[in-house]
Formats: sequence, structure tokens, C-alpha cells
Amino acid sequence: MISEDLTSHTAARVNGDETLYKQLAVRISELIEHGTLRAGERVPSVRKCSEQQSVSIATVMQAYRLLEDQGVIEARPQSGYYVRARCWTPPPEPDISRSALRPINVKLNELVMEVVKASRDASLVRLGAALPSLELFPVKELNRTMASAARRAPVAAHSYDVPPGNRALRVQLARRAIEAGCTLSPDDIITTVGATEALNLCLRAVAKPGDVIGIESPTFFGILQIIESLGMKVCEIPTFPRHGICLDELEARLKCCRVKACLFTLNFSNPLGSCMPDEKKQRLVEMLSSRKIPLIEDDIYGNLTFGPKRPKVAKAYDADGWVLHCDSFTKTLSPGFRVGWVAPGRFKAKVEFLKFVNTSATASLPQIAVAEFLQNGGYDHHLRKIRRLYATQMEVMSQAVCRWFPEGTKITRPTGGMCLWVELPAHVNSLDVYHQAMAEKINIAPGPLFSAKQKFLNFIRLSAGNPWSTTVENAVRRLGEIIHESKPGAEPSATHQGN
Amino acid sequence: MISEDLTSHTAARVNGDETLYKQLAVRISELIEHGTLRAGERVPSVRKCSEQQSVSIATVMQAYRLLEDQGVIEARPQSGYYVRARCWTPPPEPDISRSALRPINVKLNELVMEVVKASRDASLVRLGAALPSLELFPVKELNRTMASAARRAPVAAHSYDVPPGNRALRVQLARRAIEAGCTLSPDDIITTVGATEALNLCLRAVAKPGDVIGIESPTFFGILQIIESLGMKVCEIPTFPRHGICLDELEARLKCCRVKACLFTLNFSNPLGSCMPDEKKQRLVEMLSSRKIPLIEDDIYGNLTFGPKRPKVAKAYDADGWVLHCDSFTKTLSPGFRVGWVAPGRFKAKVEFLKFVNTSATASLPQIAVAEFLQNGGYDHHLRKIRRLYATQMEVMSQAVCRWFPEGTKITRPTGGMCLWVELPAHVNSLDVYHQAMAEKINIAPGPLFSAKQKFLNFIRLSAGNPWSTTVENAVRRLGEIIHESKPGAEPSATHQGN
Repeated sequence: MISEDLTSHTAARVNGDETLYKQLAVRISELIEHGTLRAGERVPSVRKCSEQQSVSIATVMQAYRLLEDQGVIEARPQSGYYVRARCWTPPPEPDISRSALRPINVKLNELVMEVVKASRDASLVRLGAALPSLELFPVKELNRTMASAARRAPVAAHSYDVPPGNRALRVQLARRAIEAGCTLSPDDIITTVGATEALNLCLRAVAKPGDVIGIESPTFFGILQIIESLGMKVCEIPTFPRHGICLDELEARLKCCRVKACLFTLNFSNPLGSCMPDEKKQRLVEMLSSRKIPLIEDDIYGNLTFGPKRPKVAKAYDADGWVLHCDSFTKTLSPGFRVGWVAPGRFKAKVEFLKFVNTSATASLPQIAVAEFLQNGGYDHHLRKIRRLYATQMEVMSQAVCRWFPEGTKITRPTGGMCLWVELPAHVNSLDVYHQAMAEKINIAPGPLFSAKQKFLNFIRLSAGNPWSTTVENAVRRLGEIIHESKPGAEPSATHQGN
Repeated sequence: MISEDLTSHTAARVNGDETLYKQLAVRISELIEHGTLRAGERVPSVRKCSEQQSVSIATVMQAYRLLEDQGVIEARPQSGYYVRARCWTPPPEPDISRSALRPINVKLNELVMEVVKASRDASLVRLGAALPSLELFPVKELNRTMASAARRAPVAAHSYDVPPGNRALRVQLARRAIEAGCTLSPDDIITTVGATEALNLCLRAVAKPGDVIGIESPTFFGILQIIESLGMKVCEIPTFPRHGICLDELEARLKCCRVKACLFTLNFSNPLGSCMPDEKKQRLVEMLSSRKIPLIEDDIYGNLTFGPKRPKVAKAYDADGWVLHCDSFTKTLSPGFRVGWVAPGRFKAKVEFLKFVNTSATASLPQIAVAEFLQNGGYDHHLRKIRRLYATQMEVMSQAVCRWFPEGTKITRPTGGMCLWVELPAHVNSLDVYHQAMAEKINIAPGPLFSAKQKFLNFIRLSAGNPWSTTVENAVRRLGEIIHESKPGAEPSATHQGN
């Protein structure tokens, strides 16, 4: 029988628009994520669901078909719909994260820089930094493009590209934004030194030291560092491991905390790999815009979907300019190019001023090269290739964790990106695991890096950015052994479990 | 007769060290700058000076010989030493600038961005932005270097150069620093996105919003913008047009204002083109270090000396790590590369953290290309060439101003860089001149941009970054006409004259 949860969750929000069935599908998905409906269990019949939700049979049918297409449920002849079991049984998913209501100051330790620098150390098995293996980048093609651009425009390649930055690139970015659901003009866009600079500029444009920024919990440590460096505070919002931010929890936080702005990675978040369904994005944008709270959207993984079509961005639903959309080519083309961009909506003038003041301009030639690469179609071809690769690498990494890690381990179900979030048995201290693994030249990112309160002590993030190899397989096996050997020590404190 | 000024100024500071004669020379220079001793006037005899200063005859002789070498004074047979008149008579120099004692908030208007963007507009005669003409850059050689670097290290060119940045470049930078009087290790250096990012990071490392930063008056508007964007205040220090910051005034300000840090361009400052004598730099560093006040040194013009040898940097006298030295290749190699660097002394860890957080990394390939260019000796050759060029352009620009601008005009005497600071007759409003000139496609930088209080209303900055041409000559002539036509309007307010 369909749960009370579903009834209470959805009924209120079911309304007459044509995305009704999509909303219903999202709710059912979340119940499955929640564990309310488990793999192999029967989903309520179409008729029952129709009665409970006061929607038409056709709407339920549409929702179920969508879930079937997504591989979430399956139809069994003469029997109805069931929550789908996979061909291999992955460990369960982590629960929704919990977090303090009170805004907190950020203070990360030196471990972050250690993990970051490890990304450059070729003597390590690098499962820590969320960086694609460089062999997956089209370096040859890019170098060729750059050399020819420098030949054809030798002077432009060396002149200042003062903000908003290279126009040819901005034209290409505006064209590509259509696929993500956005209608942008080149004039809406400012190029930046990677998404990192874009996030800095946006935060500085919408908030000041002491202000509270709403973020996902867990969230990328780089975002925590930026907020720390700007003297701002964070309000950590609980997230579903599959669909991201819990909007009800966000709404509650907005009522009790003075959230000045939000900074979310909605598509294939880091570290969860969660992806917020498009309908939920729309509700999110409406919720924030109506309160005049800016949403800084970090979409650096959005193009790395495992599916055939990339998800939409929150910016697609931005009617009033409250969404500041940030993106870069660091994860898809070249980390070394440092080419990113931002579409800052109503904050454009402020962001453009800050961009000029912060770095004067973005390096010219990399912008020219990316623009040409996008224009010549090389990017689409490349994206198709790496999407397949990352999907495979993520699947194999998930299976290896399942094979080698102890019982009680839980993992997320990323549908894009390269981050796998692993919950270890409650007694395991991921910092101990980190240090033991580093002694054996294996680098991982321990859970406490991903929260201002340094929670998630029994979590680790693994990067599926490397092509699978015996070395990687052996490293995961060895990690499993280290974790197996972890003795339950002192009773973990309340903050240790992500609760 | 040597003035009382000289006696009182120097006597207290004359001490037994071997730079005695240099200190004496600096003081005499400043008297000439001040107008206490004028062109064509006799300098006190060696004996008289020796008596007044209680120094040996030999010391005075050394000082006079140094001033003679510098072209400041000349020996006339049987007659003694005289303040030298030039072969063409330039207009007088502006006086020492004056400024409010009280720290002030910075708020610049949109004019700054207009001037900056004009630097990209090829339809204008660009005398505004302090940017070298692109034809003076070794773009061919750099593009060749870059293409070959990309061929030889195709993967390194695209990987993250996480802070402190490219090692080969830092090795070259440390080697070159010897010429500027510094002993640096590659590990003392962090590469940045131009000097702009370096200045941002340094300010953030040593001060917080609300803190007071000591700056030169007038100072580069980009520095004012950075300070504004960080919510800090400025304390503007009076400067000599030839030797920069007045140290006595600085000392007085340090006693009454809570100056948290100083940010100075000691070598060929913008807009004055002033260069602080090395001995004075030493006293400056000692004055600030003894009070534990960090000195952020912006040396982007240091290599553009018109003389045979570049001046030292304040960092050369930095015994205790209180000097944060910033530099870039924007003015000498390529504005579009966006390669700068910082040697942050005792603040290295903080600056490195902020660099990572601000932009993650500097673009890789431009760093590799600059490193190779430095290593292969192309840079020295190039520097020799542009130093001669800029010296000529500055001389011709000064002469043209002298020829076309009205009586009462004063100009500085830059010995490096590309900025000429022009004081117009007191009734002239440089903002009016700016708008009239822009209507005729001539771009200049009006004086009020160079002060937080928007003083210097009757000043303009001219860039000598363009090779001389009929177009430039005509533009200067036309500017002169516009200024000639300026009607004395309302009585200029007290802030209009740089007083």
C-alpha cells in the first residue's frame, strides 16, 4: 500500500498543471530513496494511487511510465509495478543527511590542501580529488586549436580580454545554454578564471562578511573554503542522496535563519552525485526568488550526465534574475586552461566590477581556443565519449566498493559526475583510514572535509575520474581491508555519523 | 647658499654608514624637486655643504658626482655645481601632493570602467589606459614558445598548476629577483593571475574589511577599486613627484591613523612615474617593519627603467618578511597571458590558501611559456628594446605637452614606466576635458580617478605606451587646444587642486 508519507508529501502540492505526473514520479522516487519503498516491493496499483492522490488514472500511468524509463520501477506481467532490483545488488544508499539549524563559522584544517596537492602527485593512486584523469581530455585537439588560433590572431591572443571577456566564447556559451534550458544572450555572460572565481565573485556580489549562506550538507570542501575565506557563515541544509536538497527542510531554515543567499550544486553534486529533478529545481527557484534570496548555482558537472540528455539548470526557471549560474570547462576540457563563466542575472554589473577588480581579465588564448573548440563541434563529440566512460567507471567503482568494503557500507547512486559518497560502518574513523591509506600511497577524501562542522566522520568520497585498472582495483581492495581492520574505538560522537 | 631645509632635513639622519653620500644626494634632489633649488641655480660649494652637514669633503664630492651622473646637477668650470637645465625646458613639476589625515572610504564612479574599456577600442587614440601598445610585445616569439611547449608537454599544459604554481617559472623568477636586490627561493613565490590577483590576495591576507590601508596620493585607480571592493579604507600619503612617498608624512600618519598595511608602487609609480631612491626604500622598510606593518609592494613597472640598471625593490631590504612583493608580466610581455606572482614573506601560507580559494590555479600554458622565455634569454633582449622605446616615447610625449599645453601646465619627470602626470592650470576641469576629448575619439585618464576623495580635478594622466605617430602628436595638440579653450568656471573647490 502506498505510504502515508506519499499522501502527505504530495497531496498538498498536486495541482492542475501539466507537470503533475512528473511531480508524482519525483515523490515516489524519494520514497524509494528514503527506504519507505524497497527494492523488490510492489508499488501501489495505478487505481489505488489515483484514488489516494486524487489524480486521474492517466496521470498515474504517465508517472509510472516515467519511473520505468528511469529504471526506478519495473512492470511485471499480471502483477503490477515493482521497485526495481539491479542486476548486481549495490549496498544501500546513505540516509538523508541531517544538520544543525544554527548557522556556523567555517574553519577547515590543513587536510584540505593535502588532499588537493595529492592530485598532482603521480606516485599516488588518486581516488581523492574529484579531477578527471588527464588522459580523458582532448589535449591534442586543444593544443592544435590553440596553436592555430595564436597563428591567426597573434595580437588578440595577448591583449587584455577585459570583462565581460571574449565575445566569441560568450556567443558559444549562450548557444550551448539552450540545451540546459536557458535563454541567454552573450551579454548576460562574464568569463572567469574557472568556476572557482565565478563562485567567489557571486558570493561577494550578494553577501558580505558575517552573512549566512545556505549550502548542501555534505558539500564540496572548496565551497566551504571560499565561504570561510570571505568570513561568511553557512547554514547546512539536509540533502537526499539521490535528489539533493530537501526543499521542506530548506523552507524551514529560511524561516528561522537569516539566509542571505544559497549556493547549490544541483546537477551531480559533490560529493553525493545527487541530481535534483527538474520539477524540484523549479520549485526551488520559486521558493528563493519569491523571498528575493539569490541562488548561486554551480553546474560544473551538469554536462557529465550518464544519460542521453543533460539535466536542466535552475537558471532555466529564473524569471527574475535571482539565479547566478556558474560553470567551467575544468571537468570536461582542461583544468589547466582555467576557463569558467557566470551568468549573474540581476547582479551582472556588480559581478563584472568584481571580476575586473579581482583578476582584471581571464587569460585570452585559452578563451579563444575553447570558443573555437565549441564552434567546431569537437566538444559534443568529446562529451559523448567521456559521458560513457564516466558512467562505466562509476559502475565499476560502485561494484568494487560493494565487493571489497565491509557489510554495513552504503553508497550513493550518482547519475553523472565522478563522485561516489561512501558511508562506512558507524565505528569507522575515515581520518584514520585516510592516513593509513596515504601511508600505502592511496589517496581518498575523508568525510569531515565536506562539512563546516566536520561531521561525516565515517564517510569517504571516492573519485571515479580514473580509467579502471588493476592498480585502482587493488587500491579499492586494500582500502576495503584497511576499513575491515578498523577497530570500533571510542563511542562516536553525535556529529560523527552525518546525523 | 644651501637652504635651512637641507640642514634640518638631513642633519638628523646623517650617520656613519657608507651610504651617507647617497642620503645626501637624495636630500639635495628632493630640494630641487621641491623647488627650493631651481634649474640654473648654484648648488652650495663642496666646502660649505661639508660644514653645514658635518660630513667630510669626500662625502660631499661623492654626493655631487652621483647627482651629476644622474643629470640632476652639472659642474661648470671655475664656478662650481649648478642645478641642471635640460636641453629643452620642460614645464615645472607638480608640487608634493597633500591629503587628508583622516582615513576615508573608497567609492569610485563608473568613469573607471569607461577608461578601462576604452583601452580595447581601436577607434580611439588611447592615451588613457597605462597599457603598452601591443605591437611592442614579442607576440610572435611567445606564440612560438607556447606552441612548442604544448607539443613537448601536452598533458602538463592542461593539468592544474595548484598553488604555489609552476615550478620552472618560480625558479626563473627567483633568479631574476637577484637583479632587483632580492634573495628569493622558488618556494618563497606563488604565481597569480596577474599582479591584480596578487594585490587582492595580499590585502586579504593582512587586513580585513574596515581596516585602513596606506597608499600613495595620487595612486592607480585599480588599487583604489581593489580596496573599495574589499571594504577597506585608505589613508592617502603625500608624495614627491620624483621620489614618491614623503616618509616624514608617512611616519606622522602611522602615529595618528591605525594603518593596518601599506600598498605602494615605489618604482615608476602610476600615475606619477616617481621612483623612490633605494636608500629611502630601506628607511621605509625599516619604518614599517619595526611597527609590524606589512608593506605590499607593487613592482609591475620596475623593469621598465629608462636607465641602464633597474632600481632595487623594497623586498631587497626585507629582513623579517614584512614585505609582500607583487609583480607581473602584463606590462612587459603579455597582458593576455595573465601571469603574475607574489613573494609574500611571512604571509606565505595565508596567501597560498587564498590563491587556491580565489582561482584554484593560474592557467598552466602561459606559465610554462613565460618560464621558457625567461630561461632562453629572450626576455632580457626584449627588455633592453622596450626600455629604450619607452624612454623615447616619454621624452617625446613630454615635449609635445610642453609644446601644445597652456602656460601653467606642470609635468612629472618619470625615469621609467609609461605614465606622465600632468597638472593643468588650476581652473581647468579635467572631467570636462575628458568628455570633450572622448567626443573627438581621444581617450585620457582624468585626475579624480586617482584619489579616493576624487581630488586632482585639474590633473590628467597620459600614457606614453604608444609608439609616437602623427596621430598621437595630433591628439596631444588637440588636447592642448581643448585645455586652452577651458574657461575658468566656478571657483574650484579645495579638493580640486590636489591640495
